[in-house]
Formats: sequence, structure tokens, C-alpha cells
Amino acid sequence: MNKKNVMMERMSWPEFAAEAKRNPVVFLPCGSTEQHGPHLPLAVDALLPTALCRDVAEKVGGIVAPTLSFGYKSMPKSGGGPYFPGTLNLDATTLIATVHDVIRELVRHGISKICAVVGHYENQWIVTEGIDLAMRECGATGLRVMRLEYWDFCTEETFSQVFPDGFPGIALEHAAVIETSLMMHYYPDMVRLDLIPDHAPADFPPYDMFPPHRDWVPSSGALTSAKGASAAKGKIMAEQVGKDIAAAIVKEFGS
Amino acid sequence: MNKKNVMMERMSWPEFAAEAKRNPVVFLPCGSTEQHGPHLPLAVDALLPTALCRDVAEKVGGIVAPTLSFGYKSMPKSGGGPYFPGTLNLDATTLIATVHDVIRELVRHGISKICAVVGHYENQWIVTEGIDLAMRECGATGLRVMRLEYWDFCTEETFSQVFPDGFPGIALEHAAVIETSLMMHYYPDMVRLDLIPDHAPADFPPYDMFPPHRDWVPSSGALTSAKGASAAKGKIMAEQVGKDIAAAIVKEFGS
Amino acid sequence: MNKKNVMMERMSWPEFAAEAKRNPVVFLPCGSTEQHGPHLPLAVDALLPTALCRDVAEKVGGIVAPTLSFGYKSMPKSGGGPYFPGTLNLDATTLIATVHDVIRELVRHGISKICAVVGHYENQWIVTEGIDLAMRECGATGLRVMRLEYWDFCTEETFSQVFPDGFPGIALEHAAVIETSLMMHYYPDMVRLDLIPDHAPADFPPYDMFPPHRDWVPSSGALTSAKGASAAKGKIMAEQVGKDIAAAIVKEFGS
Amino acid sequence: MNKKNVMMERMSWPEFAAEAKRNPVVFLPCGSTEQHGPHLPLAVDALLPTALCRDVAEKVGGIVAPTLSFGYKSMPKSGGGPYFPGTLNLDATTLIATVHDVIRELVRHGISKICAVVGHYENQWIVTEGIDLAMRECGATGLRVMRLEYWDFCTEETFSQVFPDGFPGIALEHAAVIETSLMMHYYPDMVRLDLIPDHAPADFPPYDMFPPHRDWVPSSGALTSAKGASAAKGKIMAEQVGKDIAAAIVKEFGS
Amino acid sequence: MNKKNVMMERMSWPEFAAEAKRNPVVFLPCGSTEQHGPHLPLAVDALLPTALCRDVAEKVGGIVAPTLSFGYKSMPKSGGGPYFPGTLNLDATTLIATVHDVIRELVRHGISKICAVVGHYENQWIVTEGIDLAMRECGATGLRVMRLEYWDFCTEETFSQVFPDGFPGIALEHAAVIETSLMMHYYPDMVRLDLIPDHAPADFPPYDMFPPHRDWVPSSGALTSAKGASAAKGKIMAEQVGKDIAAAIVKEFGS
Amino acid sequence: MNKKNVMMERMSWPEFAAEAKRNPVVFLPCGSTEQHGPHLPLAVDALLPTALCRDVAEKVGGIVAPTLSFGYKSMPKSGGGPYFPGTLNLDATTLIATVHDVIRELVRHGISKICAVVGHYENQWIVTEGIDLAMRECGATGLRVMRLEYWDFCTEETFSQVFPDGFPGIALEHAAVIETSLMMHYYPDMVRLDLIPDHAPADFPPYDMFPPHRDWVPSSGALTSAKGASAAKGKIMAEQVGKDIAAAIVKEFGS
Repeated sequence: MNKKNVMMERMSWPEFAAEAKRNPVVFLPCGSTEQHGPHLPLAVDALLPTALCRDVAEKVGGIVAPTLSFGYKSMPKSGGGPYFPGTLNLDATTLIATVHDVIRELVRHGISKICAVVGHYENQWIVTEGIDLAMRECGATGLRVMRLEYWDFCTEETFSQVFPDGFPGIALEHAAVIETSLMMHYYPDMVRLDLIPDHAPADFPPYDMFPPHRDWVPSSGALTSAKGASAAKGKIMAEQVGKDIAAAIVKEFGS
Repeated sequence: MNKKNVMMERMSWPEFAAEAKRNPVVFLPCGSTEQHGPHLPLAVDALLPTALCRDVAEKVGGIVAPTLSFGYKSMPKSGGGPYFPGTLNLDATTLIATVHDVIRELVRHGISKICAVVGHYENQWIVTEGIDLAMRECGATGLRVMRLEYWDFCTEETFSQVFPDGFPGIALEHAAVIETSLMMHYYPDMVRLDLIPDHAPADFPPYDMFPPHRDWVPSSGALTSAKGASAAKGKIMAEQVGKDIAAAIVKEFGS
Repeated sequence: MNKKNVMMERMSWPEFAAEAKRNPVVFLPCGSTEQHGPHLPLAVDALLPTALCRDVAEKVGGIVAPTLSFGYKSMPKSGGGPYFPGTLNLDATTLIATVHDVIRELVRHGISKICAVVGHYENQWIVTEGIDLAMRECGATGLRVMRLEYWDFCTEETFSQVFPDGFPGIALEHAAVIETSLMMHYYPDMVRLDLIPDHAPADFPPYDMFPPHRDWVPSSGALTSAKGASAAKGKIMAEQVGKDIAAAIVKEFGS
Repeated sequence: MNKKNVMMERMSWPEFAAEAKRNPVVFLPCGSTEQHGPHLPLAVDALLPTALCRDVAEKVGGIVAPTLSFGYKSMPKSGGGPYFPGTLNLDATTLIATVHDVIRELVRHGISKICAVVGHYENQWIVTEGIDLAMRECGATGLRVMRLEYWDFCTEETFSQVFPDGFPGIALEHAAVIETSLMMHYYPDMVRLDLIPDHAPADFPPYDMFPPHRDWVPSSGALTSAKGASAAKGKIMAEQVGKDIAAAIVKEFGS
Repeated sequence: MNKKNVMMERMSWPEFAAEAKRNPVVFLPCGSTEQHGPHLPLAVDALLPTALCRDVAEKVGGIVAPTLSFGYKSMPKSGGGPYFPGTLNLDATTLIATVHDVIRELVRHGISKICAVVGHYENQWIVTEGIDLAMRECGATGLRVMRLEYWDFCTEETFSQVFPDGFPGIALEHAAVIETSLMMHYYPDMVRLDLIPDHAPADFPPYDMFPPHRDWVPSSGALTSAKGASAAKGKIMAEQVGKDIAAAIVKEFGS
Repeated sequence: MNKKNVMMERMSWPEFAAEAKRNPVVFLPCGSTEQHGPHLPLAVDALLPTALCRDVAEKVGGIVAPTLSFGYKSMPKSGGGPYFPGTLNLDATTLIATVHDVIRELVRHGISKICAVVGHYENQWIVTEGIDLAMRECGATGLRVMRLEYWDFCTEETFSQVFPDGFPGIALEHAAVIETSLMMHYYPDMVRLDLIPDHAPADFPPYDMFPPHRDWVPSSGALTSAKGASAAKGKIMAEQVGKDIAAAIVKEFGS
């Protein structure tokens, strides 16, 4: 049996109208177009939150709005930075306005529960500003918004399964074990297993330079080895994170 | 044999880098999230230019950038207007900035031939402004941009095949025969054949009102009947338009 | 006997105050400074909607706000494009803000019925955005706005009189028969009859290029012949269009 | 014999092109739509700099660009403030962008000598910002811009003729002797002589309040008596100021 | 005994909260970073309104918000212009937004009486716009704002004491007797007495040029001699102006 | 003997000019006005980077530009959030523009080495955008910018001295041991020792809510206990961090 479609872009307007009547949580996947090493596609940061949003929406009776495919500027220490071919960066004001507009429009259709799921680290504060401006404009309507970076939901137990030799911290997890495993779980045909990078972690100083030093970033674009990735680990993370985001949704927005 | 992938979002950065070296035409599908009647999904205006861009890119050795999923404000006389549930409208400045940013970024990676393919009528002038601002900033690099609304490429001969009883003009072709046929051709599983609207065409006065009169627009959201739609007609249009856009690309940007 | 003055710029504030009390329709002529061939002045797109607004305002008891003398960017296929000396283009955001500000200010003085009369094709969507932003800000006051491009009010009967050999469509009517005839009717001393262009119509492809190809546009700046223009035809159009705009005003805003 | 036309809006593009070749000074009258007492029209601040620009342009071989009809926000102590019906105020960013755009466009057509003539006190700093942003963008082209408030050119000798009982200072000269006299000189049919206000000068404290106190401003809207105005005084000022602006133009931009 | 602290930046949040409960006037010193001759520091325009605000706040039970350290663009005829090393100019939109934001935030904390004290001539109209936008957003809350340039509070009697040989007018008082005296009064250790400039006043024409002529401005950066400055004169001005601003505050906002 | 002054705001323009000639590193302290518990003033995030910049500038021969006193929006999980009285938040665009403007102006005066020292966690990405826009505009001049959050320079050894019982991580260090110790070191008279909070650390979920839940944040405003703070620990951190920032400056910008 087919699952009920939760993807807004595939709904007709009467279908969306029927859904909107029960004031469901609307999920907004906030991605990017950014290099993710030689083994992963440029859309990783859009693909992963979209998949997670779909999973959670199915659990909680929500809807997934169209994914934001472009994100805030990739930085060397979190995403490799602007020089990698294919990384397309939005100015902050552009992303702020996009988030603001999309929320305003959802509110116009009667939606008051929104969850922005960030899949690109650099998006966090820019998406925050878009939400804040939307709250200023629409807050009196009762609008409430949750914003989360999905990896923050990984529990210590999950990390201990994904990193049996000890979790080295989230800082260098760009195109590395977490993202590669999740891609292998959700989009196995988009992962080039033969090209998974395996090199020492980047060693960044405690500051940023503009223009960036290209040699700070490993030439693969990944910030550390992705060798330990597996679809099984991706499944563990997807399931635990999905379950816990769903629980947070229920806690904050009601069942 | 699989066709070579032309979709940028599915490329890794080394794949994109390899492509970018030969300075291919990059296609930017400019869509929207807008009601398209009871039989078509909200993403029609994003889905169709994406499919056409893929076809043309395959023909001319181009690349397709990630689709702009949100567009300029739906108007009653061309898209049914803002009241239909699910229609999400961007402010003009947001879309202008998005187009400007994406072009600036492509130029940064060495791209100098861009083709913005508009799938949402209301986008035309706003996308134009985004291109113009990008030209002002990047024009000295040799950047050249083509912008087109794909339906403008339909020839009279094609229209005579699609509308054997005479082409009534493009004005009311929202969620009607052209778009429905193209969706049946490209995305048959997203068309609800049982819900194809069949009613008299809208009869609009020669002006717009703000706020809009809801009763100007047929309650289906389509502006005229889509009854004559067929996958075969979609194929005719897709092939002729795709061929002619490819020819225009070759003429303007070289083979 | 003199007609009562309807031009706001010539009113003193007590005169405007007296008029504003009865909440008249305020007309906003939205023009441009753009080449109009060798025979017409740069202000055609401002002069014609100003004259039409004055006519209609006199009919319906309205007021004409000061004309917007600068418009959105001239495009090759509708206005000859940016290269013609004397064409001064505003950025979209500038025109949007101007329309927004002027409407906000009229609302502040108690006006709730506004009609933006566009005399420059490229203005349409940009003026629309200005209106939409003003509606968002002021809509709760009961503000209603009509926007129209005056040529859309020409009836088939009028076209058959103006184009006895058949109306070739509005697309190339830049600095051609319609505008030249209206200028001969309203501002005969500003038309250089000896310089009326008479050449074949432009033949544009179904796309735009940035930067534009200069050779797409006839060197005169007119997009087709203006030879058939006459003051009599201008009078026919001015009277029919003026009458029908007045009727639309009465229908939408009351007598 | 007719004087040569210097008004850009009445030129055809070939006429403007011929003029532009000799790189003339282009004058930009920066006006407003603002109450000017019961005896003067709302357009005074646009009409007067337009007339002065025409006079000076004729003297120095310049061109007058279309007048900016809307200006920055009227303040109680200089223009009576926002409450007077008919006063239409632009936001600062709108006027800044307009000035910036118009200068950029003139530069695009090869103009490098521009003189912004302010007729509305409140415009000064906002026009300055528009010029400064245009200089930042276009300064490398050799662009030079003069900005002036025309009343600053009145000499002491002129003031002694216009104010035989002593010049009380420029601060309250809103809709008073200077502007009324100039209007009687340039546009006598727009002055209601029977309504010229004659009351004590306003007495303002050394600060501004937001929202303004309405009772600070005389109910006429003029800030002091206009009783001493005459067309002869207007002529004296127009001729002296016109002569001296012309001299400044020659000094700064060459003959 | 120590005076009670009125400087917001030195308060803890519970201290500010306790103060805010009685809805005090909040003073916002609006300064700049601008050359002030060889004898005064770059921060003069920030330091002086901060000191005056502190004095007045102590008198009327007010609070002083953090000083705006950057101001609008220095102009040659009022501040020497942009070329002097160390002068840092904000774009108008930046300063407008800063003033708007700070007021919005104070209102959010329950403040409804704000006094913007301008210490930099060029700030006046830009601060005005920031206030006006804040009024538009927050006016319905009962917000009232005073804006003043402190030197406008000097009485004729004060000027006769500070300029015993006759007051030459405020126009050239940049880094001259008034500012130097006030600095000697408030911040004596920041005045280099050995470097006080003593030269003829600048002689400016009645217009501005962009780019500025450097030779219009005396090479010292002061616009006229500061030789007559003294701490005693500074004290006279500080006390009279402080007293009269306090009186204005009481008059407008209540005791 | 007095140390040489490195604070730009206290320099005269000839002093700044003399310094600027040797192209020193200019430090820009990026602060905020934000609650820091009952024991610390609202200006902590401005005061600390200012003091550190002064220390480092003295070491490396740099200059300290005027401090940005207002910062990006306080968030509950890092700064307590917007509800605490006295917290004044800038919109992102305002802070972006301020950083952009200040850098552009420094570049205009010949500065090409800038170090933005962030003292307010929420500023990081917004300051980054201001720098990036300045790089886009001025990058061709050779401008290079370092951006750092000062606490990221604390070494493990320092943390082991400051937190003898183990470093719990930086996440909750708002108004806690680090900031309190540094304030006791640099500004001992601004710390209310009697009010140092001592309570359990906040326990935040892995997401943010808009509007924020007030009860997530301890009522003191500190996110964890500041009990262990001491001036001696402040000195340890100030010295180690100052030394290491100086070393980074020398490494990146030369001695």
C-alpha cells in the first residue's frame, strides 16, 4: 500500500486545501548546492533534510513544503568554502527573504505550525533571521516556528554506534561519515562508493580568513575521512533522528 | 545505455568541474509553487521547465542548475491569483536577488553562457531584472544570458496539431491543454485524468484589481478547459520546443 | 467655460483637501523616459497616460496624481531596449518603492480608490509589485487599486478603424500607429510628421538576449511602420478607451 | 524666434543623441509634491527648479532631465510637515535609488557633467546620498556632479531688494515671499493672489517631535507672511540666481 | 556621593528593568567617526552628545542608550569631507536601519519616550528617516521621539559670551570654538592645546561638488579658527544647553 | 611611561594618517548590547573584545577601530534571548551593512589588513556576511580580513586552569565563568561580585522555538553558574588568548 503523499509540490491545490484545514505542521527543508566531496552530489544538503522531513511528516501527519535548493555561503571550516566548483552561495539577504516569504505565504493559507529543518550548517543563522522577520510580521496570528539542524538530534548512543572508535565531534562532519551514511541509506544510487575519501581530518586554526586559504581544506572537499560510512549507520541515524524530531514536534505543536 | 547526467544537483564537484571546463550552457529552470487546477500538482511550473531544460541540455551538451521552486506572485488572469490554497508567492525583490545570486555564482565558476527557462508566466519580468543586475555586475566578464518562456517557442504548426479546432491564444493556457499535455508526457503519474477540468474559458476584463475578485477565476483554478489534453500532444510540443530551443542555443552560444 | 482642474500638482492643499473629502478615485499615470522613434519625444509613455487619466478623471470626478516620469527598463522587443540614447531605466526596486510610497501616502490622506494607468509596457509587473506591497501594508484600511495598460481597452471595433487593413497585434506597437496617433491627437506640436518612420516590422525571435543584440531593433527605434497614424485615429482611440476606462472605474469603485 | 528646446522629455532620441555628443551639463530638477499654502500649487518645489534649470540650461548649452516630482518627507519646521493634505512623501531609500538610477543611466549615455538642482529643502541630504552612491559606482568614468539648493545662490543684494525691511533669514521661507514671488514670475496663472497668506512667522523650538505637533505650523501652511511677494521680485531672483548658477556651471564644468 | 549611573551600557539587565518600569526618557547619542582637526580626536561627534545626554539624563531621570559611534557621510562644507584620514562614513541606509532597529528594540522593552541627540551635522536627515520608519512601525504603541542637534539650543546670550566679538554663525563651527570648548570642558585630556588651529575661515561656494574639491577645506580640517576656545566657554554652553534640553524634555514628555 | 594610544577614536586625523601609512592591522571589535546576568553590565560583549583588541593591537602595532556596540539578535540558547530587558538586537541586514561600510571606509583610507573580533556569539555569521560583501566590493585592492570569536583561542591548558573540575564546553558560557572572569580582570568595577549567579546549567533541547519559551533560560540570564570566576582566571585567559591572537595576526599579516 502506498503511503499518503506528504510532499506539497506533488499535491494539487484541493489536496493541499484539504490538508491545510487540519492545520498540520509544515516542514521546510533548508538545503544548499555545495560540494560534498568526490563521492556525493552537490545537492546533499537539500536531499537529506527533504528525506528526513518526509519521514517525520509521515509520522506526525505533516506536510513538506518545496525544498530550498540554495543556501548560505559555504565556509572553508564547515563546508569547504566557495572555491570548489559547483558550490553556489546565496547572499544572506536573499536567503533571509526567501524564508520570510515562504513563511508569510504559508501563514496566509492558514498554517501556524512550521518546522524549518536545516541541512546545511551555514544556513542556521540566516534561516533564523528569516524566521524572526516572519514572526515580527505574522506573530500576532499565533504563528509558531521550530528551527533545527538535524544532526543535533543524534543521541550519544547513536554516535557510539556510528563511531565505534569514539565520536570526534561534529565540526568536521562535512561529506564524512554522517552525511555519507545518510546518503547511502536514503539515496544509494547517488553515492560513488569507489570514490569515498579516506584522509586525515582537516586541522583548522581558530579563525577564518577572507579570501580563504585554499590549502586549509583537504583537496577532496570532505573535511575528514568518510571511510566508516555505511547504509546501516545511515538507517540508524535516520530512524533515531526521525523519531526524536517527531517527538519534539508532538511536544511543541501537539499530536 | 544511460544518458549522461546533465543535472547539476546530481553531479559531484569533480564532475561539475570537468563539465565547467568546456564552458557549457547552463540552464536555469525558473518555476513556481502555484495551483494548477484539481488535476495537476502545485509544482507544474517548476517541473516542466526542468524537464525541457534536461532535454535541451542533453541535445546541446549543457548543464541544468537546480530549479527555482518558488516564483513571482500568481495573478488571477494568468495563474488564478493568490487565494488558491498552496500557491506560494515570492516578493519581487526575493526572486530578483535569487536569480542575480545564482548567475553571479555560476560566473564565479567560469560559466559565461546561461539560459533562464521560465515556466511561470508571472516570472518573466522579475527574472529579467535579476539577469539585468547580474549583467551589470558581471557583464565585463563576457557573460551572456538568454531568457525565454518556453511556450513562446511553440510554432503555428504545433498549435494547429494541439488545437485542431483553432488556437484560442496563450492567454488562458493556465492548467489547460498545453500544460496538462506536457505533464501527461513528462510526468504521467502526476496527472489526475479523472479530474481534468472542462469548463468555459474565463472572461477577464482588461484590468486587474487589488485585492482580486475571486469570482473572476473559474473555481477549478484552470482558466479554460483542459479536456483536449493528451500525452501525444505533450510529446509533440516537447519535441518541437526542445528542438527549437536547442537551435536557438546553438545560434546564440555556438555549438 | 474652463473645466475644473483635476491635476493634483496644480491644486493647492485646501483644494486637494476639499476633493479628498469625497474620496475620489486617484489616477496614477505610470510612464517612462524612453526612445519613441525619430518623430516622438522621449516622454511619450508619460504624456499619454497623463492625458488619458485627465480625460477619465474629468468624466468620473477623479484626481490625477503627479505622473511617474521614469519607468522600468526598456526591452528590445517592446521598447527598443537600453541602447537608444535618452532611454533612462529605473531598477525594479526603485519603481516598486515609488509606487508603494505614493499609494501609502494617498492612503494616509484618506484615499482608498486608486487607479494606476500604465503607459509603458515594461512597467506592468513592476507596478504590480508596488501595488501588492502597498496592499499588504494598507489593505486593512479598505484600499482598493485598479491597474491597467490603456491599450488593452481598445476594442476590436476601434482596432478595425485604426488598422483598416487588419490589426497586426499589439506586440510591435512601439512608436507605431497607436502611440503616434494618440500623440497627434493629444500633443500635435510634439510630433515630427516629417520624420514618421515607415519600415518593415521587426522580426524578433522567441527569446531575449542579455546584452541585447542591437541589430534586432529597427534603427529608427519604432518597431514597425507608423505611417498610418493620424490625429483622427488618435481621437477615436482616446475617446473609446477613455469612455471604457471610465465605465470600468464606475463599475469597480461606484459612480 | 523660438529658443532651442533644452527639455529632455520633449526631445526625440536622435535629438538627445546629437546633444549628448558634445557632453553637455545635464540638469536634474529635484522637486516634491508638498503643500505650499492656500495660494500655491502642490508642485511648487518641482516647478521652480524646473524653470530655473531651463533658464540656466539655455544659458550654458545644457539639457534638463525630467523633473523628480516626488521628494523626501516634508518636515514641520521647513515644509509644514506630513499632515497637510496633498503632501506626498517618499521614503529616503526610494529617493536615493531614484537619483542613483537616473545618474547611472545618464552616465551610460555618455553624460559626465550633472547638476542636481534641489527645490525642496528636505531633499538635500537624500539627494546627496543618491549622488554619492552613483559616484561610487560610476566615479571611475570621470563623472562629476554638482548639487545645489537654488536659494543659496541669492546674494545679499538680491535679498535687500526682495526684503527691503531686512531679510529675516531663509528658515521660514516656505510658501512665503521667495517662493511666491518666483511662482508669480514663472507661473503667474498658478498663483491665487487673493489667497496670499499674511500672518506672523512660525515660532519653532530648537527640536523636532515625532509625531509632529500640528499646532506648531500656521494653519495656512506657509511658515510666515507671503504678503511682500511680487512678480518683479521673482524676476530679480530668477535672473540673479540663474546668472550665478550659470557662472558656477562654467567654472566647474567649463564653458 | 556617586551620582546614580544613567548609562545603559553599564547597567545590568535587572537594573535596566527597574529603570524601564517608570518609563524614563531614553537618550540616543548619534555620533560619528570624523576628523576634527589636529587638536581633537576622531570621536568628538560621539563624545559630546554622550556627555550632554548623561548630563540631561541625570537632571530628568533618564537613561542613555549606547552611543552610535558611526555617522552619515562627512561633507566638505560641514565636516571637511571624506578625504581626511580616519573619517569613516556610513551609507544612509545603514544609519537609517540602525536608528530604526534601536528604537524598535527600546519600544519592545516598554520605552515610549526617546530623545535622539545628534552630535554630527550630517546625521540630521538620516536619523530623521530612521525615526520616521520606527514611528510608522511602532507609532500605534504611543511612541514619541524628540530629535535635536544640540548646538541649536545655544541661546543668543550664550553665543555672546562664547563669541565676544560677534557670532559668525554656526555654518563653519566644525572643530572650531564651540566643539573645542566643549571638549576642553568635558574631555580636557583629549584636547591637544598646542595644536589648536588658527586660520581664516573657509570660504565655500553655494554648492557642493562630487568628487569634492580638496582645496575648499582648510588643510587643518577645522573650518575656521578654534583659537578662542576655552574650558570656561565649554562649561557655559554645556550648562545652558543641558538646562534647556532638560526643560524641553520636561515640556514634551512630562517631569 | 604611557603606552602609545592604539584606539582610533582617540586619535586625531593626523595621528591616524601617520599610523595608516605603515598599513597596520585594524581591529574591529564586534559587540552587542545584551543581558549578561545580574552581575555584569549590558555591554560585556562590546567591552571584552575591545579590551582584547587593545591588548593585541599594542603587541602587534595595530589600531582599534570604534567598537560596534550593537549586535545580532540574542538567542535563548546562547545569550538568553530577546525577552531580557535591555537586550537590544539589530536586524541582520543592519549589522551586515555596518560591517560592510566600516571595512569599505578603512580600505578607502589605505587599510588592507583587518581583524574582526567577535565578542557576541550570535554575531558570527552576520559579521561574516558583512566581510564577504566587503571582499566582493574591495577584494581587488588586496584586502584581507581575519574574523575570530575570541573564546575559540582558549587552549586546552587554559581551560584546565579555568575549569579545574573539567571544562563543560563552551555552549553555556554566557555570563558564566569565562566572561565573568574576563570582566573581573579587565573591568573589575563593573562586576557585582555579590550578585554572581550560582545555579544549575540550562538544559536545552536540540532545536529553537519562535517565539522562544521563556522558561528554557535560567531566570538569572546566565546559562550556568559563574561561581568559579576570578580575576586571576580572567588574566590567564586574556594573556593566553591575546598572545595567540597576536601570533595568528603575525602569521597571516606579517610582523
